[in-house]
This record gives sequence, structure tokens and C-alpha cells, in this order.
Amino acid sequence: MANFTRAVPDGDTHERDVCAACGFIAYQNPKVVVGSVVVADGKVLMCRRAIEPRKGFWTLPAGYMELGETVEEGAAREAMEEAGADIAIEGILGVFSIARIGQVQVIFRARFGGDGAPRFAAGPESLEVGLFGWDEIPWDQLAFPSVRWALDAWRAIGAEPLGQAASNPADDRRGMHPTMRARDAIQDGL
Amino acid sequence: MANFTRAVPDGDTHERDVCAACGFIAYQNPKVVVGSVVVADGKVLMCRRAIEPRKGFWTLPAGYMELGETVEEGAAREAMEEAGADIAIEGILGVFSIARIGQVQVIFRARFGGDGAPRFAAGPESLEVGLFGWDEIPWDQLAFPSVRWALDAWRAIGAEPLGQAASNPADDRRGMHPTMRARDAIQDGL
Repeated sequence: MANFTRAVPDGDTHERDVCAACGFIAYQNPKVVVGSVVVADGKVLMCRRAIEPRKGFWTLPAGYMELGETVEEGAAREAMEEAGADIAIEGILGVFSIARIGQVQVIFRARFGGDGAPRFAAGPESLEVGLFGWDEIPWDQLAFPSVRWALDAWRAIGAEPLGQAASNPADDRRGMHPTMRARDAIQDGL
Repeated sequence: MANFTRAVPDGDTHERDVCAACGFIAYQNPKVVVGSVVVADGKVLMCRRAIEPRKGFWTLPAGYMELGETVEEGAAREAMEEAGADIAIEGILGVFSIARIGQVQVIFRARFGGDGAPRFAAGPESLEVGLFGWDEIPWDQLAFPSVRWALDAWRAIGAEPLGQAASNPADDRRGMHPTMRARDAIQDGL
């Protein structure tokens, strides 16, 4: 098994975990969680967790972002995986840091996709999934404090247009610009 | 040296790099870049890169978020490291995904800290640092397309109040809530 010791690699400024067995440097960086407050008729889509941590408690459809996707794509994937919901992202509701566990949460406001009618079903990581009005939310059974933060952010903005946080420009929705040549990129952007 | 093969670990849904020599699973997730558009008198703070990639080209003070910090703390650290600037974060200007390279950029608008007077100096990763009005920005020498995206987001909002994207609540600025017990967290939040 890997046998890590702490050392500062050449050219680095921080101590990292370096495997004494094989030399591998395990760069550990904060991980991104992407999720959504999915709203229909003023109610929010919530999932009761079928897995640890916090099995049996209620959360928003959210999970770790994977390589190769955008934040928006990751949030949509999690809504499908955990709640069987096809969603349409509206914008960023909040960006939360959980410094203690090295986590950054990017939480969107979304509605149901297609004709907007709410369709959902518990995925393998959920015991049940449901829509809750503000006063129906199982406040004493929330899985994580940040669920409350996101719900509070939703309550603060309601159905109003979301604010200014920009996302990728329309001509490069996935950050797939083929080169790093600034002049080309700028010309593409004009 | 590490000798990785692709395999789906038990209980996982995605293929990961597993070291055949020591069994270590190298989870690779998107990395978070934190940075700022630091504004003084309508001018933006920019750094000319002293390191690859894109050595000699201009960028915003930004870099990889480290474990144990919030997005805001990371952006402030990068401004100090790269531009010798003590900054005051105002809010999120944009969240950009570079799916091709597994990167999420959280870019803030900020001003100089303390009395607000611009004080800066090139850090070890910068050849020079300066303040640029919109028409003075070295557009044909930008390091990365996303620098342009962030500058465009700044131009769109200007000095107006930033929009709705929430950050950590005032009573838990660093995500340091000591327990996962939802009831406590909720009571703390009320």
C-alpha cells in the first residue's frame, strides 16, 4: 500500500504527501461539490440520503464534480443521478467553502427541464425524493449545515432574477478553447 | 515510481487511476483556481507571468486554491503572493469552467484593503505588476482566454453592487461548523 510522508517537492511551496514506496506525489486540493436548488411552483426538490454520511437525512441533489464536465453539467448530472430529474440551470445561487474538509460548493438555482413539469424519482443514492414548500422542509432532518445555507440563499432571492456572477461565455460554454494563443482567443471573443 | 492502471474501485461508479505498485487510488477531480479583479480608480490590477505556462503574458492575480482555506482566503493569498497586494473581497464576479483541463475558476471583484490606496509589487511568480484602465489592458498579450472572460464580467458590472451569489453565512465564514448534527447547525443559523 501507499506509504506517504510529508515533503515539499522541488519547485513547490507547500508540503505534499509523497509516497515513500513509489515516489508518487498526491497533490490534495479542495474538491468541488456541484448541486442545485430545483424549484417548481415555489417548492424545492430534496433527497433523503440512502448512503453515509448522514444516511436518512435530507439534502439537495448535489455531489462531487467529475473531470471533463462544467459546473453546470455536473449539477445537472447529480440531479439526474440522485433525483431522476432533468433540470434547467438558471444561475448561481451561492458558492460556499467548507474549509475544514477542503470542499467548495457551487449551488445553482434550477427549474425542471422540458415543459417544466416536475418529474423525479429516487436514484440509487436516495431513499426518497420530494418537493417541499418552505414550511414543509424537514428542518430538523437536514443532512448538512450547507443545505440550510443554500436554502437560505434561495429564500433571499426567491424567484427574482439571479445576480451578476458570470459563467462561461456563449461561444465557449465548456471551456474548450483549442489553443492558449491569446490573440486568437480574444478575436474569438469579439 | 507509481504505475497507474485504470480500474473502477469497489463502490465507485467511475474509472480511477490505481497504482499497480502500491494500490493507491489517485482520485482526480477538477481543481479550483481562485483569483480577483482588483480595482482602484477604475483600473484593474494585472500581473505579467514570470513562470510557464504563458511566461511573459498578462493575467489576473489567481492560482490554485489550497486545502484549509476558503475561496475568499485563497484569492486574497494569491493577490498577496503574486502582486504584493492586500485586498478586500467584494463578491463573486464569475465562476468559469475549463472542462478541457478540469479547472473551475472562482473570480472575485476586490478593492485594495486598508485605506484602499493601491499598493502592490511583483511577487516571485510575476515579472511586473500594474494597474490598467480598460483601454490600456494589453489585450494582445493576455495569458489565458479566461482572463478575458473575467475582464468582460467586470466591464459588464463595473462598480455596481454585485448580484446574488451567496457565500458562507456570517456565523460560519470558514465552514468550520464543529459537528454535522443538523439541529445544532440549524439553531446556530437562526
